[in-house]
Amino acid sequence: MIEVAIMGGSGYTGVELLRLLKAHPEVQVTCVTSRKHEGRKVWEVFPSLKGLYDLTFTNPSPSVLASAAHLVFTAVPHQAAMAVVPALLDQGVKVIDLSADFRISDPMVYEGWYQAHSCPELLEESVYGLCEIYRERIRKARLVANPGCYPTSAIIPLYPLVRAGVLDPETIVVDSKSGTSGAGRSASVATLFCEVNEGFKAYKVGSHRHTPEIEQELSKGAGKNVKINFTPHLVPMNRGILTTTYSAATGKTDLNGLRDILKEFYSGAGFVRILPPPILPNTAYVRGSNFCDIWIHLDRRTGRIITVSAIDNLVKGASGQAIQNMNIMYGLDEWMGLDNPALYP
Amino acid sequence: MIEVAIMGGSGYTGVELLRLLKAHPEVQVTCVTSRKHEGRKVWEVFPSLKGLYDLTFTNPSPSVLASAAHLVFTAVPHQAAMAVVPALLDQGVKVIDLSADFRISDPMVYEGWYQAHSCPELLEESVYGLCEIYRERIRKARLVANPGCYPTSAIIPLYPLVRAGVLDPETIVVDSKSGTSGAGRSASVATLFCEVNEGFKAYKVGSHRHTPEIEQELSKGAGKNVKINFTPHLVPMNRGILTTTYSAATGKTDLNGLRDILKEFYSGAGFVRILPPPILPNTAYVRGSNFCDIWIHLDRRTGRIITVSAIDNLVKGASGQAIQNMNIMYGLDEWMGLDNPALYP
Amino acid sequence: MIEVAIMGGSGYTGVELLRLLKAHPEVQVTCVTSRKHEGRKVWEVFPSLKGLYDLTFTNPSPSVLASAAHLVFTAVPHQAAMAVVPALLDQGVKVIDLSADFRISDPMVYEGWYQAHSCPELLEESVYGLCEIYRERIRKARLVANPGCYPTSAIIPLYPLVRAGVLDPETIVVDSKSGTSGAGRSASVATLFCEVNEGFKAYKVGSHRHTPEIEQELSKGAGKNVKINFTPHLVPMNRGILTTTYSAATGKTDLNGLRDILKEFYSGAGFVRILPPPILPNTAYVRGSNFCDIWIHLDRRTGRIITVSAIDNLVKGASGQAIQNMNIMYGLDEWMGLDNPALYP
Amino acid sequence: MIEVAIMGGSGYTGVELLRLLKAHPEVQVTCVTSRKHEGRKVWEVFPSLKGLYDLTFTNPSPSVLASAAHLVFTAVPHQAAMAVVPALLDQGVKVIDLSADFRISDPMVYEGWYQAHSCPELLEESVYGLCEIYRERIRKARLVANPGCYPTSAIIPLYPLVRAGVLDPETIVVDSKSGTSGAGRSASVATLFCEVNEGFKAYKVGSHRHTPEIEQELSKGAGKNVKINFTPHLVPMNRGILTTTYSAATGKTDLNGLRDILKEFYSGAGFVRILPPPILPNTAYVRGSNFCDIWIHLDRRTGRIITVSAIDNLVKGASGQAIQNMNIMYGLDEWMGLDNPALYP
Repeated sequence: MIEVAIMGGSGYTGVELLRLLKAHPEVQVTCVTSRKHEGRKVWEVFPSLKGLYDLTFTNPSPSVLASAAHLVFTAVPHQAAMAVVPALLDQGVKVIDLSADFRISDPMVYEGWYQAHSCPELLEESVYGLCEIYRERIRKARLVANPGCYPTSAIIPLYPLVRAGVLDPETIVVDSKSGTSGAGRSASVATLFCEVNEGFKAYKVGSHRHTPEIEQELSKGAGKNVKINFTPHLVPMNRGILTTTYSAATGKTDLNGLRDILKEFYSGAGFVRILPPPILPNTAYVRGSNFCDIWIHLDRRTGRIITVSAIDNLVKGASGQAIQNMNIMYGLDEWMGLDNPALYP
Repeated sequence: MIEVAIMGGSGYTGVELLRLLKAHPEVQVTCVTSRKHEGRKVWEVFPSLKGLYDLTFTNPSPSVLASAAHLVFTAVPHQAAMAVVPALLDQGVKVIDLSADFRISDPMVYEGWYQAHSCPELLEESVYGLCEIYRERIRKARLVANPGCYPTSAIIPLYPLVRAGVLDPETIVVDSKSGTSGAGRSASVATLFCEVNEGFKAYKVGSHRHTPEIEQELSKGAGKNVKINFTPHLVPMNRGILTTTYSAATGKTDLNGLRDILKEFYSGAGFVRILPPPILPNTAYVRGSNFCDIWIHLDRRTGRIITVSAIDNLVKGASGQAIQNMNIMYGLDEWMGLDNPALYP
Repeated sequence: MIEVAIMGGSGYTGVELLRLLKAHPEVQVTCVTSRKHEGRKVWEVFPSLKGLYDLTFTNPSPSVLASAAHLVFTAVPHQAAMAVVPALLDQGVKVIDLSADFRISDPMVYEGWYQAHSCPELLEESVYGLCEIYRERIRKARLVANPGCYPTSAIIPLYPLVRAGVLDPETIVVDSKSGTSGAGRSASVATLFCEVNEGFKAYKVGSHRHTPEIEQELSKGAGKNVKINFTPHLVPMNRGILTTTYSAATGKTDLNGLRDILKEFYSGAGFVRILPPPILPNTAYVRGSNFCDIWIHLDRRTGRIITVSAIDNLVKGASGQAIQNMNIMYGLDEWMGLDNPALYP
Repeated sequence: MIEVAIMGGSGYTGVELLRLLKAHPEVQVTCVTSRKHEGRKVWEVFPSLKGLYDLTFTNPSPSVLASAAHLVFTAVPHQAAMAVVPALLDQGVKVIDLSADFRISDPMVYEGWYQAHSCPELLEESVYGLCEIYRERIRKARLVANPGCYPTSAIIPLYPLVRAGVLDPETIVVDSKSGTSGAGRSASVATLFCEVNEGFKAYKVGSHRHTPEIEQELSKGAGKNVKINFTPHLVPMNRGILTTTYSAATGKTDLNGLRDILKEFYSGAGFVRILPPPILPNTAYVRGSNFCDIWIHLDRRTGRIITVSAIDNLVKGASGQAIQNMNIMYGLDEWMGLDNPALYP
């Protein structure tokens, strides 16, 4: 049994870890922390877990936390993560960090989009946890930076294509649409039901912090510096991200060739499902599951490649991928605890 | 391995059986039927199942169907069920029928609310599959009539109370609110997105066919003929039923006594969660799970007992309870394949 | 032109007054107050009003406010209203108060459900603004207490029936379902999109503050003290209340007689639409409009009367009825500014 | 009084015309047709209109229809429109056609995306009714082709920019997101509540019939043949389109210059609101209103222009713009009947 702790268990990614880990035969959750709810039963805050977990929220020091677990999922905001991760690693536990703090390898880039980094020396060691790309490095990692939700949905379809040189990396547009759970569980007027329901908007156009994360990975794939346009939108639904990308084809191959590139790259990766032409991705097909559905089109009228991808932002976009990373780190079957279909409808 | 077939696999209860059975370690689905989709891969109709099932929809005769399975879930409309169930039983398979055809023991009552019954001789043998009440009879059953969604939500909180004589059975009002999946997956203007979304309505007031089913079970509990008011309402959400009931207290006991009656009746029944006073049931706490959350209040100003209960209409209200019935029939742990928490949020 | 001011213009009822008054040919809004948004353009806070209002939020003293208007709509929370209304009246302006502060005539009852009242002497003068019942008194009123949203939906169908003695007032159950705008526009976890969407719950069972308001009016109709059960529920939609009531018929009349009582009582009241049997109320039919749709049924099996009613909680349940009250106070056509159909779909 | 008829009054655009025309002081609706509902009261099909219209659905011949009205709104599907419009014009009535049949001036292009055109001789006469661009021609038109919903949302922000030469027309990507009312009111599994709610998808990627309509208008603006990528998506909400466009800036001007181009082009056009940088368009701000909100950004990192625009697909995207066209054709104030703010929330 792997003993795991969840730091920051009162947000949506924290409670999602608890939901998913219930189905994992090799894991025991020994500790869930929350400053806000310290001392309360987990099920009192999240009644969906009544009868399934008898845990109480605690607020331990890093060393106490580390003594309770072999692995800690840090599901706290950026800045809060980097304040505690070094201490956890020093205690000998593994860490899968769900914040942005260890995703950007270049501390200057991190500082440009976030703020100064307090432990830049860990950035080199940290492994970017996009399982289907970095499986081998994850296997040996002590610290995994779990990818952002938008980046997961954009990198999975685009990385093999930029790597294969079939699209012009100067022309990439990423237009993403996310359910509202991505905005977190803090009280705020902007995410009240009546403000979101029956509405649709773009936000942080040209300035969303997931931009450098997508660019870093596509640059690695392309072998050169890539800048993209990334526009997030808010959808009146709880879960799901659908990402549509546009880029100019280089003309190297046709639609079948493009599909073959994706099929080959993800040949051993069952969580990435390449949908055949008549069936387009829909967030409803992945809700609650760890799948990433992708679809590709070559528009002959304009010479542009269009990809569409769908994930559940809380699963493949956060807690599910975190567990997949854990499975890889511990040599377990990658599907363990993650083999459920979507909740449809 | 229990080999099971699903007859009528293209409706919401059929695909929900497929979703849930994926997590069941002792079951193999060998056959899924659909007249409409015969010959198509199941995942082509329900892309959420891609990579998880390689089945093709078929349309076999009852005897071919029976030869493919130890147990058949009949997830077809009423009338269609009674046309096939006798033949299935004759072939020696067990049947869990999700339609209304075998729920009403009195054929005259059935005829009054539905139409003439074609095999009334089976009504005596058929066991009403409300697991927490009829567990012992279900264990030995060949034919289980899986309860309706509304009745499940109403009978679970009320049955122990009428049985204990703490409420006046002449005064029962059942006000239910259901998500839209209860209306099925057939094309219809009334259940189009734009007709349901941002709306709320009552329907079939005083005439819904689940009325006699609730009355039959409460009458058994009360030991006398009970008539109720039952009003269903349509909620703009996919899944969930919340039922609020009102009845006059007989004065035999106070609120603690009422809660004790429920606690004792459901002491061995983990799927029924009795929520403590400050935490009220919410369909969001049971979405996708087999739980029935119940809550009770005694209003001292009016002397009335109020109960609130929540289920997922497709799980405890249909396919989940069907699997729970199967587990009981096969002597398996009742939780097998059904131990997942709700998908929240 | 009637010059009106809106005190508390940054909540949903405030912005709804602005929306509706735009269509009113005899009204000019001269002042909108907000402590939170003082100094900001109204359209910067509510971009839906861009190009339609050039007003700026201010935070004036009561006397300055009074000098700017003939009538003030106080759309502030209870307690805040009673702190300012006496000063406004002293300055000679008329007041329509959308809070609960002047609805309950008995200060002891008010104190029991809210807190001590700071100007109980005004409770006798204040007129309960349910237009269809108190039209004559409203005409001469200086201070109108605009009814609560739930009470409006419950009193309209029930008042004529209790008055006619056709139901037993000891047996009334009021089961209401409201859209989320009723919870206001303050940041709160409980009303976040993800907490409300795809969920349904009851809340404040037996303790909601609209209970005494409904009881007060039904008691007046019945000519004796009436106690009811009132249960509010939260619906994942922005606007609308649907209320289902149950009560024992006294047997005085049949269904046609019951319908005639409603038709006669509301014969001159076009905003109350009595729907014929096959057409049930739906909040979608009144969304954005000032209508109250009602429907009645006599269940012969149980001898109970069931009513269903639908309003838009922000229109007939708040700002629309406030304007209807203003129209009556100023001798205008009651429909002025309020004759739009619902926004459907 | 202008007497108008609505042909095809049982779809969403038909009932929306009825809703909006109720507020128009110079119009009387004399006839509403529906083959499906012939003989039924309009309010029996659309109870939201009870008490507001006493009309009955009829199914007259074109000549009878023409005799009942000065102007006919044809709100029927494409093909059905071109089958009747010539006869209506021959009878001397004006026609505003809400279908696609008269939008494409080149019959070969029309045929390529739809089917053969039965009256291509009318295509030259027909005026494309995007009011803010073709106001002068609309004024004298006998036949106005009311623009498609997606094209309205895309052309309004892009037309002035291509005309000014500030973007490279070879690089235009139009990524649109629409509420579900755009799919119409016909029974279909794909638009059932449970299929749309809590889901998000792209559809008809590279093949949607609004593509040639957008291209035709942008080509006129650019003075050369323009091909675009257009991708529609389905949003789980009733109303609203948000369109995000991407294109390469030519470098002629900076962000202020871009904004000035839009401001100048729409200087006399109050329905087009250019939002200042911190306030982004949201379909909630235009719901039920005739506004088109637009917003522009110049991304310095990539040199791309991004526009975001929002309309209500049933108002500015269909019935509202049709009424605006009627106002122009009859020399009325363009705002007549259309000056209401959005229904928010």
